[in-house]
Amino acid sequence: MKFAKRLDNVSGSAIRAIFALLEQPGMISFAGGNPAPDCFPNDDVADIAHKLLHKNGSAVLQYGGTPGAAKLKDVVIDMAKQRGIAATPEQVIITSGSTQGIGLAAKSLINPGDVILAESPTFIGALQTFLTYEADVKGVKMDEHGMDIDALEAAIIAHNPKFVYTIPTFQNPTGRTMSIERRAKMVQVCEKHGVLILEDDPYCDLRYSGDPVPPIKSFDKTDNVIYLMSFSKIISPGLRVGAAIADPRVIAKYNVCKQGEDLHTSNLSQEIVTAYVNSGKLHKHIAKINAVYKAKRDAMLAKLKSFPDSIKYTVPDGGLFIWLDLPNGADAMPIFENAVERGVAFVPGTHFYPDGSGKSTMRLNFSMASLSQIDEGMDILKAVVQENM
Amino acid sequence: MKFAKRLDNVSGSAIRAIFALLEQPGMISFAGGNPAPDCFPNDDVADIAHKLLHKNGSAVLQYGGTPGAAKLKDVVIDMAKQRGIAATPEQVIITSGSTQGIGLAAKSLINPGDVILAESPTFIGALQTFLTYEADVKGVKMDEHGMDIDALEAAIIAHNPKFVYTIPTFQNPTGRTMSIERRAKMVQVCEKHGVLILEDDPYCDLRYSGDPVPPIKSFDKTDNVIYLMSFSKIISPGLRVGAAIADPRVIAKYNVCKQGEDLHTSNLSQEIVTAYVNSGKLHKHIAKINAVYKAKRDAMLAKLKSFPDSIKYTVPDGGLFIWLDLPNGADAMPIFENAVERGVAFVPGTHFYPDGSGKSTMRLNFSMASLSQIDEGMDILKAVVQENM
Repeated sequence: MKFAKRLDNVSGSAIRAIFALLEQPGMISFAGGNPAPDCFPNDDVADIAHKLLHKNGSAVLQYGGTPGAAKLKDVVIDMAKQRGIAATPEQVIITSGSTQGIGLAAKSLINPGDVILAESPTFIGALQTFLTYEADVKGVKMDEHGMDIDALEAAIIAHNPKFVYTIPTFQNPTGRTMSIERRAKMVQVCEKHGVLILEDDPYCDLRYSGDPVPPIKSFDKTDNVIYLMSFSKIISPGLRVGAAIADPRVIAKYNVCKQGEDLHTSNLSQEIVTAYVNSGKLHKHIAKINAVYKAKRDAMLAKLKSFPDSIKYTVPDGGLFIWLDLPNGADAMPIFENAVERGVAFVPGTHFYPDGSGKSTMRLNFSMASLSQIDEGMDILKAVVQENM
Repeated sequence: MKFAKRLDNVSGSAIRAIFALLEQPGMISFAGGNPAPDCFPNDDVADIAHKLLHKNGSAVLQYGGTPGAAKLKDVVIDMAKQRGIAATPEQVIITSGSTQGIGLAAKSLINPGDVILAESPTFIGALQTFLTYEADVKGVKMDEHGMDIDALEAAIIAHNPKFVYTIPTFQNPTGRTMSIERRAKMVQVCEKHGVLILEDDPYCDLRYSGDPVPPIKSFDKTDNVIYLMSFSKIISPGLRVGAAIADPRVIAKYNVCKQGEDLHTSNLSQEIVTAYVNSGKLHKHIAKINAVYKAKRDAMLAKLKSFPDSIKYTVPDGGLFIWLDLPNGADAMPIFENAVERGVAFVPGTHFYPDGSGKSTMRLNFSMASLSQIDEGMDILKAVVQENM
């Protein structure tokens, strides 16, 4: 078998092995990034789907256009406007989740060997995708206020990257949010050096404390930011619907690349999302799920207070993740192995680092487990951590 | 804007311009490849979706696995078995339409400069996709019995291709079906030279006359054929569900590549297709739509009998297309322009040739227009053809 060279450095096996563990009966999972199973609007979606298909099935079940349904673009434009982003329909394309928005950026822009800059650590799915297009991903250091913009500018000058990938709000894996000042400065720096920004923003509506922060794209006056939205965390990931907002020339390339991937996003998924948002129920639904997630975050944070003081952890204002850093460069891997033996899974942080560093870090997800599982699982994790330190 | 080099040779603008014409009010379209809008099982799908989401919404709306739902894999394996193909779950991946099955073959296998062989003419979407991965697509001549296998073997020896792409049954654009003898011989020849076959088979259930022909994959004893199935033509293209059956090593690469495209195919679409097939209604539905399409094919063929005798055309036993060849190398482009002016659209055949030849050919679709539109449109087309010859 002679597979394409682009796959030579892509395995993903470490992470796949972790997710295989989650199938074990009784495993308490802090490993994934799934919404809670009781946080979907099942019945509303059921009624919407039924009505749509009876009334307009001939259109819903037919081929659609690659750029996406005009009515859903309007929904996206309206939601973006509420976030401080002005967009026209030719600046929007509907994607099959923001996963596809990342993949289409890679396909449209990356030549083998191109440097991509990203927060260190960053989303493992994006890392894998950039590797599939033979990019050289370099990490930019970050702190509790997000990516370090001075370090970013130095990396831009040193590496002449094709674009900068960032998750500025409730970042995966750290849960951190970039400050407003850094957002504005990032736009200036990238514009000055002619470097595109790929802003991945799937979590911004999942805020449990603090004030909303406008997206990087809202500071962008020259269409230098590709902004990715997702309906996965606020309605359903199983429907696979997201959107990209960018310069119309970028959207045109996304369109060409998407034609060869899935032709278009499921019409039924697009119509369901459109009808659900237009029903006016989304705001109430988000408030409901945020209350659930806030309680879970608080429960996990309360347990972390009793962990050894030397362990640092983030206190996220939203999203799905808490990030742990063990003292003195302790290795998270034996903790992972011991925890799994005792029925608790998480993701060792090293997988999120472009250079494979971060051996002392751990990502904990608090959205998927129940409150009682969080209590039980965190007690086990505390014991395992203490034994390993 | 510095886009990726892979997009340098991809435009698709000629075809996009044709499809833009179809938006004109009153245009009779023989141009697309869409199922008829009255050939979808709307009400059954509506009831299935409603029940699924009420009963099992928490799973349907959650993230799914990249390889696809186990129950849908079972459906695919059962359908493949009926076509003479034996497959296990690790030989199957669910795709977002067979479009994605083509794209994932390209992403998994093509290095820039690799030669891909395909029938000349072939499906324009596949051509575009292969170009996006910087392949050098070379056409292999075909006749009324499909691809010429001697020409194929000569091309394999001359070009050392990465794989051979074929639509053996009711081919797009010609409507032709490869003979059983050639299918068996193709498997032998490709195995002998170590060249993979990508068999795209979305139309095989749309048969209106003649006996079923087993897929190329059914002759394959060494897992050398990647077989692509689609539910687009028999249930709905808007749901975006297909499948690939291949060597588990190929499926593993498809899986890695799909992770960076859409993560997984819409769960709701997968569950709807599974439930609809398992309801036992599919066979009756296919019989119903085949009766509709047979009447349309026959109506178009009846009109073609009155066209000038010197025009050759295919008489397909199924599928969606009839292929015309004008005498003495006449140019189809003025006919196209005149026909559009008078309210009838088709696709000039040259777009389907890897080398841009085929100027005297035309593709007519008979599935989308109504019977009365076929009568009216074919009379107009006849007049235009006569004026241009």
